[in-house]
Amino acid sequence: MSRSVFEHAAPEIASVEVERLVTDIIGRVADKWTLLVLEALEQHRELRFTAIGREVEGISQKMLTQTLRQMERDGLVIRTIHPVIPPKVEYRLTEMGHSLGYAFCGVWGWAEANHAAITAARARFDTKAAG
Amino acid sequence: MSRSVFEHAAPEIASVEVERLVTDIIGRVADKWTLLVLEALEQHRELRFTAIGREVEGISQKMLTQTLRQMERDGLVIRTIHPVIPPKVEYRLTEMGHSLGYAFCGVWGWAEANHAAITAARARFDTKAAG
Repeated sequence: MSRSVFEHAAPEIASVEVERLVTDIIGRVADKWTLLVLEALEQHRELRFTAIGREVEGISQKMLTQTLRQMERDGLVIRTIHPVIPPKVEYRLTEMGHSLGYAFCGVWGWAEANHAAITAARARFDTKAAG
Repeated sequence: MSRSVFEHAAPEIASVEVERLVTDIIGRVADKWTLLVLEALEQHRELRFTAIGREVEGISQKMLTQTLRQMERDGLVIRTIHPVIPPKVEYRLTEMGHSLGYAFCGVWGWAEANHAAITAARARFDTKAAG
């Protein structure tokens, strides 16, 4: 699968294998919870598990555990266990995690520029569906 | 919830209500299937339901129905029923849909620039988890 508008961002697709890997990575990071955890850690630098849970409205403990573990596995997040009693575990972004935050800027900007148009589209759709 | 690295994309957050709406929209569009349907429609301009299903590897019929309906509701996709026998239904992106595709460029570029580092991070994590 090649990409059209995305082409200028990626002129040198190496192989089908790399493309598949990139699509897989996109599938992982294009995720609401990953994005919101990324934002919380950008804002606060380093946070404990429960503090992230407070920042990310609506996330369940199970989903937060899973999201942080995947982000750690992908090299986006560093988990530090401070050797105190009781042990204190904190999370912060790696350089790569920060760079993903920057890459998502365009999408936040897009949402901010288009929220009124989306609200209007939803109202039209719902009126039509009800009528 | 304010945003840090995202700030330059959004200097003029109008209100908490707008911010909540923007976070809600991000939650909707930061979705693997939305992104892959967006890519398929960028590449082929207009497609029937079954053709989109072929382009988006691994999507179930139920998930494709749901994704297209949400994208239509958000004003990202136009659904055209051609009055032929049997009726032919086709999907294409709106201007707003195209602009979301462009906004996601940075994320594709990021995934392409970092796929080797992510693969290495995963290998390290899995070795550590197994050891």
